[in-house]
Amino acid sequence: MHLRVVLVQPLYEGNVGSVARAMKNFGFRDLVMVNPCRIEDFGLAMASHARDVLQMSRSYTSLGEAIAGANLVVGSTGKRLDTAQHHLRLHLRVPCLSPAELAEKLQGMDGTVALLLGREDCGLCSEELALCDMLISIPTSQEYPVMNLSHSAAVLFYELSRKKEQDGGMVEMARRESLELLAERSRALLYEVSYPRHKVDYTLLMLRRILGRARLTEREARTLLGLIKRVRWRIDARDEGSEDGHKRASSEEAGQGGEK
Amino acid sequence: MHLRVVLVQPLYEGNVGSVARAMKNFGFRDLVMVNPCRIEDFGLAMASHARDVLQMSRSYTSLGEAIAGANLVVGSTGKRLDTAQHHLRLHLRVPCLSPAELAEKLQGMDGTVALLLGREDCGLCSEELALCDMLISIPTSQEYPVMNLSHSAAVLFYELSRKKEQDGGMVEMARRESLELLAERSRALLYEVSYPRHKVDYTLLMLRRILGRARLTEREARTLLGLIKRVRWRIDARDEGSEDGHKRASSEEAGQGGEK
Repeated sequence: MHLRVVLVQPLYEGNVGSVARAMKNFGFRDLVMVNPCRIEDFGLAMASHARDVLQMSRSYTSLGEAIAGANLVVGSTGKRLDTAQHHLRLHLRVPCLSPAELAEKLQGMDGTVALLLGREDCGLCSEELALCDMLISIPTSQEYPVMNLSHSAAVLFYELSRKKEQDGGMVEMARRESLELLAERSRALLYEVSYPRHKVDYTLLMLRRILGRARLTEREARTLLGLIKRVRWRIDARDEGSEDGHKRASSEEAGQGGEK
Repeated sequence: MHLRVVLVQPLYEGNVGSVARAMKNFGFRDLVMVNPCRIEDFGLAMASHARDVLQMSRSYTSLGEAIAGANLVVGSTGKRLDTAQHHLRLHLRVPCLSPAELAEKLQGMDGTVALLLGREDCGLCSEELALCDMLISIPTSQEYPVMNLSHSAAVLFYELSRKKEQDGGMVEMARRESLELLAERSRALLYEVSYPRHKVDYTLLMLRRILGRARLTEREARTLLGLIKRVRWRIDARDEGSEDGHKRASSEEAGQGGEK
């Protein structure tokens, strides 16, 4: 499992340097940033012996570029359902995993995990959370839940680097394109079954989170795609059947053996 | 179990403030220092909303005073036996516990645990280690094992506070009956879309495993049941449409608004 650390619009260079140091402390080196602040002397000083991690980091202007190619996108949030603003509640109504649960789920998985850490002041926004397959949250005190960015990072790296007994071989995680295709085909299916328009986005987000938490394998993604294809084919076949009468419907029926 | 955090001669006020913040993040408040640096504006800024922890902290001139009354004294060290100076080897030849092992050992313990964190540059000295009942070390990369003081602190507090956590538990897990219903309805759907018979059982098992790994919520189970119902309704509507012609199909179409 390869970890790509994605800092989304970090505001303070000291934090960026501290995150780089914590990464190297736990053996991670792939740092990507989206519209970061300037990294100058203080940032380099905080990185200490992890300047190389900073120097090899890449910056992009969009989150889409930063997560390109990742098999799983994990968003970290410190927000709580009970105190979150209205537009974020949608995201927080699904269970957030703890860092330990995430580490457990990633056991034996092969692929790239993009771990998103948001801005120091307001974290990840709603559109960014919508790109995540899974949300995690560090269990903190109710009284003061807001952690320093690099502290959250250190705790997450610690948990993700912990050596646990491997059970069996590696399993190929679903590819990003397969997950995107699943989202696209699911949307098409919802439209096709006249799913209430105002619920479509929420239901798609829920599906993404369910599959993300399950950390879908490529094989499972293919099976789900095949299942959706068959359902849609069945609906289409019927549609054509109802237009052209029994004859067409029966010929489609007969042809189904050829459907992959 | 009461945790007393003991910073031994911290050199940088920023780190002290950061440690205070991390303490409060994880519900700890008892901070004691031995010959600390001066805490001024930067230290207070780094403490953020944990100024009260700094303000209530106590400072002593000897470690003996700082650990007075503690039931257990735990020293944290980043040093490795193979690279440690001669006078420290004595201490490092006994096994260091990992933070997780410490947390496990403290389960169900009643009393005060003093957790010693040493200087940023050279940690705890030989005489200080000699006062410890137990040593712990965070497993880090061999390449760059030296963590920032407040990062080590955050990881330790995270691990020591974990037992209180027990799963965030705010979200209602899917009921067994809902999961069984989901399996039953999924099977019906597979039959309805003429899914290859020899693959049905395997695909249903795969679905169950995906949903199981995702630890589905009751809300999500309900949404998935609604989705399957709608897909099946859509197929049935078409089936009836193809049998009875356009008229029946259109009336079903019109009726779909009533579908829950």
